[in-house]
Amino acid sequence: MKRDVSARIVLNVSEPADLVFAIAVARQYESVDERFEASVGGEPVPHHELSDAHGTRLHRLQAGAGELVVEYQASVDDAAPVPDAGETELLVYSRPSRYAESDSLLPTAAAEFGGITQPSDLLAAVSSWVGTELAYVSGSSLVTDGAVRTLLARQGVCRDYSHLCIALLRSLGVPARLAAVYAPGLSPMDFHAVAEAWVDGRWCAVDATTLAPRSTLVRIATGRDAADTAFLNIVSGRAELVDISVSAVADSLPYDDVTQLVSIT
Amino acid sequence: MKRDVSARIVLNVSEPADLVFAIAVARQYESVDERFEASVGGEPVPHHELSDAHGTRLHRLQAGAGELVVEYQASVDDAAPVPDAGETELLVYSRPSRYAESDSLLPTAAAEFGGITQPSDLLAAVSSWVGTELAYVSGSSLVTDGAVRTLLARQGVCRDYSHLCIALLRSLGVPARLAAVYAPGLSPMDFHAVAEAWVDGRWCAVDATTLAPRSTLVRIATGRDAADTAFLNIVSGRAELVDISVSAVADSLPYDDVTQLVSIT
Amino acid sequence: MKRDVSARIVLNVSEPADLVFAIAVARQYESVDERFEASVGGEPVPHHELSDAHGTRLHRLQAGAGELVVEYQASVDDAAPVPDAGETELLVYSRPSRYAESDSLLPTAAAEFGGITQPSDLLAAVSSWVGTELAYVSGSSLVTDGAVRTLLARQGVCRDYSHLCIALLRSLGVPARLAAVYAPGLSPMDFHAVAEAWVDGRWCAVDATTLAPRSTLVRIATGRDAADTAFLNIVSGRAELVDISVSAVADSLPYDDVTQLVSIT
Amino acid sequence: MKRDVSARIVLNVSEPADLVFAIAVARQYESVDERFEASVGGEPVPHHELSDAHGTRLHRLQAGAGELVVEYQASVDDAAPVPDAGETELLVYSRPSRYAESDSLLPTAAAEFGGITQPSDLLAAVSSWVGTELAYVSGSSLVTDGAVRTLLARQGVCRDYSHLCIALLRSLGVPARLAAVYAPGLSPMDFHAVAEAWVDGRWCAVDATTLAPRSTLVRIATGRDAADTAFLNIVSGRAELVDISVSAVADSLPYDDVTQLVSIT
Repeated sequence: MKRDVSARIVLNVSEPADLVFAIAVARQYESVDERFEASVGGEPVPHHELSDAHGTRLHRLQAGAGELVVEYQASVDDAAPVPDAGETELLVYSRPSRYAESDSLLPTAAAEFGGITQPSDLLAAVSSWVGTELAYVSGSSLVTDGAVRTLLARQGVCRDYSHLCIALLRSLGVPARLAAVYAPGLSPMDFHAVAEAWVDGRWCAVDATTLAPRSTLVRIATGRDAADTAFLNIVSGRAELVDISVSAVADSLPYDDVTQLVSIT
Repeated sequence: MKRDVSARIVLNVSEPADLVFAIAVARQYESVDERFEASVGGEPVPHHELSDAHGTRLHRLQAGAGELVVEYQASVDDAAPVPDAGETELLVYSRPSRYAESDSLLPTAAAEFGGITQPSDLLAAVSSWVGTELAYVSGSSLVTDGAVRTLLARQGVCRDYSHLCIALLRSLGVPARLAAVYAPGLSPMDFHAVAEAWVDGRWCAVDATTLAPRSTLVRIATGRDAADTAFLNIVSGRAELVDISVSAVADSLPYDDVTQLVSIT
Repeated sequence: MKRDVSARIVLNVSEPADLVFAIAVARQYESVDERFEASVGGEPVPHHELSDAHGTRLHRLQAGAGELVVEYQASVDDAAPVPDAGETELLVYSRPSRYAESDSLLPTAAAEFGGITQPSDLLAAVSSWVGTELAYVSGSSLVTDGAVRTLLARQGVCRDYSHLCIALLRSLGVPARLAAVYAPGLSPMDFHAVAEAWVDGRWCAVDATTLAPRSTLVRIATGRDAADTAFLNIVSGRAELVDISVSAVADSLPYDDVTQLVSIT
Repeated sequence: MKRDVSARIVLNVSEPADLVFAIAVARQYESVDERFEASVGGEPVPHHELSDAHGTRLHRLQAGAGELVVEYQASVDDAAPVPDAGETELLVYSRPSRYAESDSLLPTAAAEFGGITQPSDLLAAVSSWVGTELAYVSGSSLVTDGAVRTLLARQGVCRDYSHLCIALLRSLGVPARLAAVYAPGLSPMDFHAVAEAWVDGRWCAVDATTLAPRSTLVRIATGRDAADTAFLNIVSGRAELVDISVSAVADSLPYDDVTQLVSIT
């Protein structure tokens, strides 16, 4: 399926800044007509590309003070199958992480999902439970919030839904990770985040928000949690977000049958 | 410098368990006479070895119910120089992690170390401050404790000292990670943990406990924090620690000049 | 019903200490043969008595260094009915407190008990839920733990069970407080703590541990949470608990029908 | 000194609500021309007054759906001296409370103020430290935040400054409590909160924000922390704040010498 994605980010760079963007589609795609451009006051700002885990591509640049505009666009088709996860990778994604504190949530996970043993059943149960227990409330969480606070607050945004799913799944023995994605059909349009759980020998998308069909998602960044996938990381200097616009359009928006396992392609 | 290290771990496996041990010296060493053996009731238990990040070696095994004895020993000489860290690696070790919540500690780090800019000065200042502010109290922390709780409690063990150093350094823009090590000279002898900070183009050991000379440390596992370096990870099943003994002997125990940068070799 | 209670507390006073004990039965009882004695090295230590809220009686003393022995005993009959709570009192016990963070637990309370409206039904539902969800594990909690951490840990002791009940009840609009008590029938014998909820115009005991019949409880201290009812408060100086023994004997140990509302008498 | 104070609060009552306001001057004042009025759609809403601790006066009313307007005004002169605190009261205000977790902050307090022993010196040191370490940032904290989070965030509003002062002082053995006040000279004008510490036999105001002279403060509510002094408590029902305006004018605004002990009069 063909998808056109783009993002435009405007930052007020108040002190010269070292910035890393994770907004390009992952290396798994053969993107056509891809473009990443940055400029301050109309003058191009050079950048270079870095490879992070699982085909994540980072764009890094040094921006002087002023209004920085970053524009990205790409058209992608379905990605080739991703190779199997290695054994160590599955151990890594079973470990607690900054925003998916599976160690602290182990008692909760055991109490809520104690009798379920099959990974596919756990995926379904956790996703349904998180979707039911949480209320989607824009702006309700802080960037330092992890799954523990999300559980207590019973509200959050896509990042929080994903972190809670990831933490519970890991507590239950199912490797899980976070994927930042473009999500055709999402409304209001924005960057999106979903969990991925290792079930039946592949990484399956888990989106407890059910805000966009999983089969049209386009992968950007993949990692342990939002610490690994933030669309912007200010390494040094100072920059404030002025404006952000994201678009993601697919040929079609298929019905998403939540009983089916779906991978990001 | 030649060092002889060994560990003996006895577990009561109360339900058949999938266990991962991180007790072998890292791949960077050419170890001589290395031996890893596991047995239940005198019967050998097969295991296999996995590669984790930075030369970390994991040993995984499936143990039936009973008393599991795991024995490891190795003799190592100085390791060859470790290749330079890649650019992405330094970004990864600047991110907050489960037990080194550099995002939550940013205001504290800025308040305590605000005027210091050189990474080597920051390493010295953070290490000295953590060593002064914390009291080493065996058994004073929980496995779910991270740097935030250590800071509040002002006490901990080597793991906690390291996490607080790592979190503060990351907050201040210095990439930092955790190394589990054998530590000749440590008393009482046990597995040890130190931070590593990226200063002057190399990973430098930071041990705010000052309990063992840094130059004799032997690397076991390396990662973001203790989530990546635990000597035992119970993937499934149930096992309780019955006994653990660790030894680490070096040809000599040099004086550790805390003003010098020292890497783990 | 007649009950005989006693406590013997031995402290190692390592620095002269200002100590407050809450071990005497509350003022509501007409106790017979009551005795409170303190001594260091066989020499009596003078003390004086203070009145705290709801008839709580505190004994305060200044102990020099040495081994302090405090002994208390009393025989009590059923207490006279306690006067109705004032309107302000009910507001006070609806507020969040140190170890019963009803503000932070509001989303959890709403999710778990959303459809229930009658205070007596809420008392039954909360008590049953807490008793089912938590495991009683001696030594599993810290003195700084409140209801939030108890909920996450799903384990605790009587203090933790009570705090979680109190926090949930307050979140749901039911005033609730903590009572430290002597509890005939408790095994192993110790000081005990129960919640009290304002239902049907009186304070009703809530003991989710179901470890002792509520009708035989003898009230010691009453307050917002354990901050108000600790059996020992070290105001200054330094003292370590060496030994504690508590006894509480009732004429009979009636069956405790958990469906009945019971007040502490 | 004569002071004129007033407040006007507009609420959107979306579900009939049981509301408690703490906006009237404390009972210690002989107020002249005092007025408390509530109306929905121009129709008066009856209310009654309750007495809370230390002369705090609460106004409680049942409001139907609609726009509720509450108006209060009073003119007060200096209050008569407040009677000495009782011994139990000082014990109560030494205990940890919901938003002043002195138990969790004990290690921090000991590390920062370890050598200081005189209560007046502790008051000065804590007030100065909190004023220096925190940044006053409107809207930077949540209503569930206590002193621990304020310390970590190093920012907050008057409520947070006060809670941190209170918690640290209690940790150091100085009884401390919270006072909600009208504060002539405050800019922008709003309800204000200060700590009170028991020093030299009286309650002395501690305002680490130094935003208003302490000698002109007019006491509203007094308690353990903001749980006891919130200007509005929604006991049941649902109401959203639409608008709030506060005024407080004094004959003069004296220079506030922070080296002097000042009580609220």
